[in-house]
Amino acid sequence: MARLAAWPFEDLGFARVDHHRALRGGPEVVYGAGKTPQEAAAIVAALLAQDASPVLVTRATAEHAEAVGEVAPGARWHPRSGMLVCRAAEPGGTRPGTVAVVCAGTSDLPVAEEAWVTAGAFGCRVDTLVDVGVAGAHRLFADARRLQAADVLIVVAGMEGALPSLVAGLVAAPVVAVPTSVGYGAAFEGLAALLAMLNSCAVGVSVVNIDNGFGAGALAARILRARGPGAPEAADGSNP
Amino acid sequence: MARLAAWPFEDLGFARVDHHRALRGGPEVVYGAGKTPQEAAAIVAALLAQDASPVLVTRATAEHAEAVGEVAPGARWHPRSGMLVCRAAEPGGTRPGTVAVVCAGTSDLPVAEEAWVTAGAFGCRVDTLVDVGVAGAHRLFADARRLQAADVLIVVAGMEGALPSLVAGLVAAPVVAVPTSVGYGAAFEGLAALLAMLNSCAVGVSVVNIDNGFGAGALAARILRARGPGAPEAADGSNP
Amino acid sequence: MARLAAWPFEDLGFARVDHHRALRGGPEVVYGAGKTPQEAAAIVAALLAQDASPVLVTRATAEHAEAVGEVAPGARWHPRSGMLVCRAAEPGGTRPGTVAVVCAGTSDLPVAEEAWVTAGAFGCRVDTLVDVGVAGAHRLFADARRLQAADVLIVVAGMEGALPSLVAGLVAAPVVAVPTSVGYGAAFEGLAALLAMLNSCAVGVSVVNIDNGFGAGALAARILRARGPGAPEAADGSNP
Amino acid sequence: MARLAAWPFEDLGFARVDHHRALRGGPEVVYGAGKTPQEAAAIVAALLAQDASPVLVTRATAEHAEAVGEVAPGARWHPRSGMLVCRAAEPGGTRPGTVAVVCAGTSDLPVAEEAWVTAGAFGCRVDTLVDVGVAGAHRLFADARRLQAADVLIVVAGMEGALPSLVAGLVAAPVVAVPTSVGYGAAFEGLAALLAMLNSCAVGVSVVNIDNGFGAGALAARILRARGPGAPEAADGSNP
Amino acid sequence: MARLAAWPFEDLGFARVDHHRALRGGPEVVYGAGKTPQEAAAIVAALLAQDASPVLVTRATAEHAEAVGEVAPGARWHPRSGMLVCRAAEPGGTRPGTVAVVCAGTSDLPVAEEAWVTAGAFGCRVDTLVDVGVAGAHRLFADARRLQAADVLIVVAGMEGALPSLVAGLVAAPVVAVPTSVGYGAAFEGLAALLAMLNSCAVGVSVVNIDNGFGAGALAARILRARGPGAPEAADGSNP
Amino acid sequence: MARLAAWPFEDLGFARVDHHRALRGGPEVVYGAGKTPQEAAAIVAALLAQDASPVLVTRATAEHAEAVGEVAPGARWHPRSGMLVCRAAEPGGTRPGTVAVVCAGTSDLPVAEEAWVTAGAFGCRVDTLVDVGVAGAHRLFADARRLQAADVLIVVAGMEGALPSLVAGLVAAPVVAVPTSVGYGAAFEGLAALLAMLNSCAVGVSVVNIDNGFGAGALAARILRARGPGAPEAADGSNP
Amino acid sequence: MARLAAWPFEDLGFARVDHHRALRGGPEVVYGAGKTPQEAAAIVAALLAQDASPVLVTRATAEHAEAVGEVAPGARWHPRSGMLVCRAAEPGGTRPGTVAVVCAGTSDLPVAEEAWVTAGAFGCRVDTLVDVGVAGAHRLFADARRLQAADVLIVVAGMEGALPSLVAGLVAAPVVAVPTSVGYGAAFEGLAALLAMLNSCAVGVSVVNIDNGFGAGALAARILRARGPGAPEAADGSNP
Amino acid sequence: MARLAAWPFEDLGFARVDHHRALRGGPEVVYGAGKTPQEAAAIVAALLAQDASPVLVTRATAEHAEAVGEVAPGARWHPRSGMLVCRAAEPGGTRPGTVAVVCAGTSDLPVAEEAWVTAGAFGCRVDTLVDVGVAGAHRLFADARRLQAADVLIVVAGMEGALPSLVAGLVAAPVVAVPTSVGYGAAFEGLAALLAMLNSCAVGVSVVNIDNGFGAGALAARILRARGPGAPEAADGSNP
Repeated sequence: MARLAAWPFEDLGFARVDHHRALRGGPEVVYGAGKTPQEAAAIVAALLAQDASPVLVTRATAEHAEAVGEVAPGARWHPRSGMLVCRAAEPGGTRPGTVAVVCAGTSDLPVAEEAWVTAGAFGCRVDTLVDVGVAGAHRLFADARRLQAADVLIVVAGMEGALPSLVAGLVAAPVVAVPTSVGYGAAFEGLAALLAMLNSCAVGVSVVNIDNGFGAGALAARILRARGPGAPEAADGSNP
Repeated sequence: MARLAAWPFEDLGFARVDHHRALRGGPEVVYGAGKTPQEAAAIVAALLAQDASPVLVTRATAEHAEAVGEVAPGARWHPRSGMLVCRAAEPGGTRPGTVAVVCAGTSDLPVAEEAWVTAGAFGCRVDTLVDVGVAGAHRLFADARRLQAADVLIVVAGMEGALPSLVAGLVAAPVVAVPTSVGYGAAFEGLAALLAMLNSCAVGVSVVNIDNGFGAGALAARILRARGPGAPEAADGSNP
Repeated sequence: MARLAAWPFEDLGFARVDHHRALRGGPEVVYGAGKTPQEAAAIVAALLAQDASPVLVTRATAEHAEAVGEVAPGARWHPRSGMLVCRAAEPGGTRPGTVAVVCAGTSDLPVAEEAWVTAGAFGCRVDTLVDVGVAGAHRLFADARRLQAADVLIVVAGMEGALPSLVAGLVAAPVVAVPTSVGYGAAFEGLAALLAMLNSCAVGVSVVNIDNGFGAGALAARILRARGPGAPEAADGSNP
Repeated sequence: MARLAAWPFEDLGFARVDHHRALRGGPEVVYGAGKTPQEAAAIVAALLAQDASPVLVTRATAEHAEAVGEVAPGARWHPRSGMLVCRAAEPGGTRPGTVAVVCAGTSDLPVAEEAWVTAGAFGCRVDTLVDVGVAGAHRLFADARRLQAADVLIVVAGMEGALPSLVAGLVAAPVVAVPTSVGYGAAFEGLAALLAMLNSCAVGVSVVNIDNGFGAGALAARILRARGPGAPEAADGSNP
Repeated sequence: MARLAAWPFEDLGFARVDHHRALRGGPEVVYGAGKTPQEAAAIVAALLAQDASPVLVTRATAEHAEAVGEVAPGARWHPRSGMLVCRAAEPGGTRPGTVAVVCAGTSDLPVAEEAWVTAGAFGCRVDTLVDVGVAGAHRLFADARRLQAADVLIVVAGMEGALPSLVAGLVAAPVVAVPTSVGYGAAFEGLAALLAMLNSCAVGVSVVNIDNGFGAGALAARILRARGPGAPEAADGSNP
Repeated sequence: MARLAAWPFEDLGFARVDHHRALRGGPEVVYGAGKTPQEAAAIVAALLAQDASPVLVTRATAEHAEAVGEVAPGARWHPRSGMLVCRAAEPGGTRPGTVAVVCAGTSDLPVAEEAWVTAGAFGCRVDTLVDVGVAGAHRLFADARRLQAADVLIVVAGMEGALPSLVAGLVAAPVVAVPTSVGYGAAFEGLAALLAMLNSCAVGVSVVNIDNGFGAGALAARILRARGPGAPEAADGSNP
Repeated sequence: MARLAAWPFEDLGFARVDHHRALRGGPEVVYGAGKTPQEAAAIVAALLAQDASPVLVTRATAEHAEAVGEVAPGARWHPRSGMLVCRAAEPGGTRPGTVAVVCAGTSDLPVAEEAWVTAGAFGCRVDTLVDVGVAGAHRLFADARRLQAADVLIVVAGMEGALPSLVAGLVAAPVVAVPTSVGYGAAFEGLAALLAMLNSCAVGVSVVNIDNGFGAGALAARILRARGPGAPEAADGSNP
Repeated sequence: MARLAAWPFEDLGFARVDHHRALRGGPEVVYGAGKTPQEAAAIVAALLAQDASPVLVTRATAEHAEAVGEVAPGARWHPRSGMLVCRAAEPGGTRPGTVAVVCAGTSDLPVAEEAWVTAGAFGCRVDTLVDVGVAGAHRLFADARRLQAADVLIVVAGMEGALPSLVAGLVAAPVVAVPTSVGYGAAFEGLAALLAMLNSCAVGVSVVNIDNGFGAGALAARILRARGPGAPEAADGSNP
């Protein structure tokens, strides 16, 4: 308990920045939606002043990117997903293993990109497969070997959300399913895909929130890290 | 309009039996749930007194079967699905084409049986494939030719309800999807499978109510009939 | 399985275009929503370079229509429904039989148009009945003969979604029910109509997603084709 | 306000019985579900000790009927609906006009009976039409004149709940729609019928709770009473 | 049935206008939402060419009002509710009795206005009480006599929707409850109020769709008409 | 943090019993549902071995009561609510102020009893008002002074859940609203009442879970305690 | 009852202003959403003409603030929350005790501000803790003493809504939980947080509507007041 | 693709048993619910006849256990969870690393047991922590070191489902969250916990279906296996 109490943080007034995460070399993530560009920039500046790595902003608009860019000159913004990578993991920090990001349709690309940019920023090697929906399953099976070569798979799909079940039946590695809000009518903003994934009859599937590409990417990195020889990474909460 | 007004029916007090359906040689269906065995038997007796064919009772209990059996001696009861076939279509009434009934798991069998018994009672030739869920898709693909040989496909699945999308991607014939209440938790009594099927990204899929094997079987017969050379069958409503 | 593995496709980076569908003369459909005009145009161009027929874009905006028009000069855009027909089925490809599209109210017309433009592009002969809601059932019965002359019926309705039950009670052909998001309050964006249609007490009704006029039109074409003498059409998935 | 404060009631400990309702000759209703037979009997006894008329118990089991029968010897119990009429309106209290109770299917009879027993106990003349579901609309139209002769119509239906729209399109009188929990799967215990009725495109339809036959019957009596020449009846709340 | 078949209508292409409603002097209602101003104007013009009375457009925007105004010069538009009265009931057509429109809060006024404008256009005498929510029940009780003087009551409320129960406990006349979408959070766009009203423990309450002031007003007129000595009004469906 | 770490507990294998709660004189509550009688008895025995006061079991069956009675001879079981009071607060521990428990209908009594037994076991003085539903509001107003004399009010109601709004408009003290699962159909097991209470337009209302009479009683005691002169009570979690 | 009838109010046509609240020195609250700036200003002017204190407008836009500012020159507008304090409680009216407002994340600040501005306007002393979400619980525990020093706690959280349970486990005072609509996907506009809070396994938690910071602040003031020596404050309903 | 086609299976008529899973040494799982004891026994017998390991039956009743016990003499049945371990992984097959199973309350034990029995049968070393709910967070923190020593964590909780967020904030390993149906009222059979877990603000959390302890255990084994030096395990679908 003493160790817990000793964990330091910095109070910016509107946010409390965990410094102990930096001490432990953990990731630092800022949830951009609902924060002003100025708030996001201030939090990023505080994080960069330490050794935190990587430092990311999710759901970042062009305005967020611009404001943050002034305190993080090398930050790279991905417009399709809104990912803003302020500081990636150092080259030497690459984790062993591969994360495959599988995407059902073109419309799911923003969420898939959020996942693979995140995994990449965490130092993972990433392989991507796009537009392999269940209605044309042969497109998926053609790449069965690539799927089976991955150590973790992130499967992104909207509409009926059937892809994770199909993929999980082909591989032995864990599958992180990401429902998206792609669809209309009875898709109910991703609810149909979410329920389908939760009810997958395949072994080895777990689910994150609708459109939560970041969560899937960060989880994949955690799973991969368990393989590595290094010291255990400490806990890293997000700034909701 | 004159024709519409002329359609006869018989008032049993608690039910109105359409005689014009019999005149047209159409099917006669009694929904067993919520009716007493005596009520079901009385309706069946009235139907058999005419030329109606086939005459079916759905969701029939052993008590229904016994009571109906007294007025319809040759009635055959299928305990797993509760289907009670009081009079099947005459042998010469067989419709051209084949209905394939595809079933995801062993637990979906009662609903699948309701579908194939119905289609058979309507005079359809039926082919059945059982336990070909998406988590072991190779079991499905091994039978791709059988699937492609069918003129209509009924696909029965619970849990994530992904099978119709997968099947529809392999065939050119219409697919009737039947969600089942098999599953637990976030399956929500079949809601997850229903939503998944409604959001199928494959072309050619339509959906009936949860566990409605009868509806799928009767619809398949209607679709097949369109191929035949015979006279058009008249409308046939159920006795809810 | 060998045949399955042999199905070719082309990888555009953001989409995988099925060439085997073209080889089989099948329809090619691009779901416009969530794709940039440029992405849509690129996919259409790849499809037209083959023998694919018909080639359609659904939910197309004016911007989609303009971009696609540059690679498909004869493309015709229907603003009310957003249907973009890039290449219709050749005249000789007309399928036998008639599809009736029945529409409950004026506000349901965009979805109904999506259905009949699709069916027409697939080579079906189409008959349309508009504004025949259940509150004035005599307007429907006045056309009972037209309804009974159809080989497949697509019934489009919002609000309480009662029209498919009423129509299915008058005809012997299969009824494809399309709930629309027309309504307010407890219509819950089409949920009320969807549930009503799924619970139809009439025989021969199946349901597609809310506002999914395209799906109904393509399914009707599949059902009609079963009547024809030609070679079986191969599977055709959409590009979600 | 003084009149309001003056309204008397009697405290039984577990229930407060309105005596002013009796003073005004109003109906007295006890909701049986969730009350012990003894509690129900005690409340009925207190009501009968006054001039209250009618006195009803809804959702009464055989046990309720037996216990109540000891304090209300002439009470008549209707097993199908669970209605227990302890004291009906006196013969001279008959209201002008007719209530038509229209019932979609045999399975809806318990709720329909609750409605017509209630209306009858309130002194209304009742006409009943059973098994006239929308899938066989000609059965309904054959009785169009009886429908149009009614001053208020109670329409009871489960499943897709389409009947009230159809009836309201044929008559000029107010329609009270009663959704029932008849159905399965996506009927969701009456939710589908409830939503359909709330979204009726017909004029003159209002809705009561699922399976609330009593509420519909009592409302119909209130509507009819407005026609009569007598003094205004006072308020009558239920004992929930 | 012959009478039913004889009911005339006029086909405008996008709408079928019931002329028989005009023959019977019934109301004519056009649902404005989802129709172009031109469509609305064309339907109104066709109705005014007959004896229809009243002629109303609901959910009309300023653009609707302008377009309709050119074919119905005396049309009066109520911006708060979007009601457009093209032709009111003639002065001599006033119905006996009074409709009380009771409104819980200032934010519910648009829906309440839709109700009272409708009732007024149907020839009803209307009494209005505004801002009498349950949290200050004394404001309601102060007007108990006005409430008890009404022959029908329309009670409009959002949020917890408790007002109809309270009002129905004070009067003997039928209460038409109108839930509104006023509120936020767990009000779920009027769902909370809708459910509360459907579960009212008071006798004599029925419910219409969320925000459906028109439906309540038209129903109240139907109820009142039952009191009158005149000939029965014929059925009048809306143009959805 | 040191104090937090020092809080002791005892590990029974299937439960961890907080001893520090006993040290602080706090309440000890065991949630009976889902625990075997033996598990419940073992936890109670561990608590009684300390100074804990009061010690309660909620949702206790007769079997729970019997098993617990062997380790807590003076335990008193309330069958209607399932409350099992193993050790009440000592007489001298009575808190200042009064808790009023107001109950809409007879069917809500089990939940109301759970609330008042809990408050009493915590040493509160309790006043109870039963059967004062909104449909007969005069029964409530007759006791307005008793309501206004309370320091905290617990208002228990099912069905439309309107009573808390009405009560809160009459008093200045905080109101704890308890929705119950009493009702049927669109009551949806208490959801209607829950939503209504959450949307109360009155000031001073907060809500606990459906049927959670215990939670309301314990909260009321916490609110009252703030008035007292004694030392602050420490935190007390339940054993879920 | 006489006292109830005597409560005065003023009818502005679109609103009824309670003067008796002013007589009792109670708070006056105007719900801004859905009212025009002019309506809000008129109500405020009527309230300020009396002794009402405090006078607040919630969900006020800049336009509301401007219009109200003309009749309430000293009104202070808080843009983040939309709170408009027209007249705060006089300095001498400060209530004994402290309200702690605990906020899970930066994005929840608008709702938290609504709560603390309200509590402050009611004369409460407020302590605020920001950005102490459960994923970094040590940030919360570091302030355990501040939490335990509060007499009432308002805990504001979106997403999984877990913070109230955690806080309630650390303190003995009542906890008012406020779910917010912060989140995306399966947060369902605050539903996830709402359900979590209603199911809190901790003792002493009650819940208000999603985003209802005002309700929490006003309730906290009511709870605190119970501690004070002053005369009882009278009831105060809002103007919905 | 050739490899895919070559995967063998055995058709039992009601189930297709994957033999290739046995060839690959993968797990074999039979979902007991909805299967007769005889069906379950037949599938198990077929699996044991091969080298499959482990072989499990989930949701097994005593009847299942008895029937299976005849074909699998050493099978061990766990009554609380219904897990039936027919053949555990051989001792030498133990996987490196530790799975921690953390359980919020005593009532969640059946699901937690399903998880740890599964993980154990897969050859994982398991550490269990019981009754560490968020309302007494100190009980959790006391074991922080044990939590941080685990390589994968399974966190089981019902009610508000807050425990996974809290645990994930303390560790760096992946967290598999399992919502349970423990609770009542607004817990909605586990929906509240499910939504809370999906919306966790902590990094590294993914979710499986409600009460799906088996899925969590099997997933944890898959994650751990990634650490091992052995050959990659092949895919393993369940028999739904």
